[in-house]
Amino acid sequence: MNLSLENQRELPIGVFDSGVGGLTVLRALQQQLPAERYLYLGDTARLPYGTKSPDTIVRYSLQAAGVLVKRGVKCLVVACNTASSTALEALRERYPQLPIIGVVQPGAQAGCEASVNGRIAVVATEGTVRGGAYQRAITAIRPNAEVIAKACPLFVALAEEGWVSGSIVESIAQRYLGEIFSSPEPPDTLLLGCTHFPVIRPALQAVVGSKVTIVDSAQTTAAALSSLLMSLGLLCSARSSTGLESVRFMATDGRERFARVAAYFLEQHISPELVELIDIGLTDL
Amino acid sequence: MNLSLENQRELPIGVFDSGVGGLTVLRALQQQLPAERYLYLGDTARLPYGTKSPDTIVRYSLQAAGVLVKRGVKCLVVACNTASSTALEALRERYPQLPIIGVVQPGAQAGCEASVNGRIAVVATEGTVRGGAYQRAITAIRPNAEVIAKACPLFVALAEEGWVSGSIVESIAQRYLGEIFSSPEPPDTLLLGCTHFPVIRPALQAVVGSKVTIVDSAQTTAAALSSLLMSLGLLCSARSSTGLESVRFMATDGRERFARVAAYFLEQHISPELVELIDIGLTDL
Repeated sequence: MNLSLENQRELPIGVFDSGVGGLTVLRALQQQLPAERYLYLGDTARLPYGTKSPDTIVRYSLQAAGVLVKRGVKCLVVACNTASSTALEALRERYPQLPIIGVVQPGAQAGCEASVNGRIAVVATEGTVRGGAYQRAITAIRPNAEVIAKACPLFVALAEEGWVSGSIVESIAQRYLGEIFSSPEPPDTLLLGCTHFPVIRPALQAVVGSKVTIVDSAQTTAAALSSLLMSLGLLCSARSSTGLESVRFMATDGRERFARVAAYFLEQHISPELVELIDIGLTDL
Repeated sequence: MNLSLENQRELPIGVFDSGVGGLTVLRALQQQLPAERYLYLGDTARLPYGTKSPDTIVRYSLQAAGVLVKRGVKCLVVACNTASSTALEALRERYPQLPIIGVVQPGAQAGCEASVNGRIAVVATEGTVRGGAYQRAITAIRPNAEVIAKACPLFVALAEEGWVSGSIVESIAQRYLGEIFSSPEPPDTLLLGCTHFPVIRPALQAVVGSKVTIVDSAQTTAAALSSLLMSLGLLCSARSSTGLESVRFMATDGRERFARVAAYFLEQHISPELVELIDIGLTDL
């Protein structure tokens, strides 16, 4: 990139996710960095990444990042846990000049800080759990931590359906988590390792009990990005307006569905007209 | 195709689905046509089709059919409801010589035959319901039928998780279907418009009550294919061995997951080694 630092600073922050879940990260970024502009890409044509193989996830992530880099972004937030845990190295190799941040490392950091007894439960998709990235990231920070990772794929479907509270989501959470949290030495921390899960957070809290601290990576990812941009001189100063006009949305499929489901995640209404449909399935890198 | 009829007859039946759900159709085909060989392609890298746009579904379906045609099949069964309701015309245009059968028309036929009061509930994915193919197919056969179509995306997640019975699946079924079946003039027929749903059929029966007839398209699709092949002189005569050795499986991603989830649908153990991994994402037609 041959732009001056000042011109670079004015570029948007690129945020990429396999779908709409990363909007929980976007919301945290907007809250902590309201002066920034954002370019959000949801690869809705090829979601979910969570059940796909590592090779496929790396290939899809490189393609999605390629779209954002071509449009011009000053940094890249990989707001998808599966892509963060699988494709981060490949992305950094492909774009060595670009600051790139995933959600796994900040999430693991938050989990380690929140836990007193060192027992941390991580809930995520099948792909994230199988990849073991949270387990590695947590034990790298806190070698004696005991990590209990549990794949909870139905949480994704519940979040996308908007069934975020009530007996059904609590029964499902109980089935996934009941045994773990009723053990003699239960975890004191539940780390949400999937960007979909913050929308069902109150239901999870009801199941695991009020003594368990629930952390998600959205807030800590935003804090980590803030520090990173500041240290690189890339942080924007105050802008008068905040909100949706500072974000551009791109999706690879289904603008209407993107807009509808996004409402649960961003807690704001989005008109389908604000979502640009792009095609990255046909061009390979 | 320049093969003789006899040589054509020896070719396998091509079965294509977005993932593993179509295995419920394969099972019905094997039961009714045990002398045939089968080539099954699950486009697991790009599932689910149910949430994708019509253009994308048509493109993916043409690619998947292309793989099967290249390998050599005597006919094509589109065992995916979403693809059947969206891509059948495009497939027939691309392969005018190939007998092609979807699951929507036979399913609609079965629903119409089963219903006495003419009120038929159809449960399916979002894409199938939105596309309206079942609604059109049913009213084409029975113009006065009242069709109540309901998208039930969580059923897919439940089936893939293997949570096929018990209170959770029944609560979810109750939430989706309770109001429809407790109306003053309830449907007497429930048509399963998604190949995943037969695995949760007993739970659905418990919720809608024993007086409601549940039909799925697998059996009628197999019967329809049998008639079609017979009329074309393409039906195989008796073969000594039946079972898995007469099927070849291909998946576009995740052989282990395919084999594991397939067990719920095919009610047989499949070794991951029997599943050939193919890549159709990189080549466009």
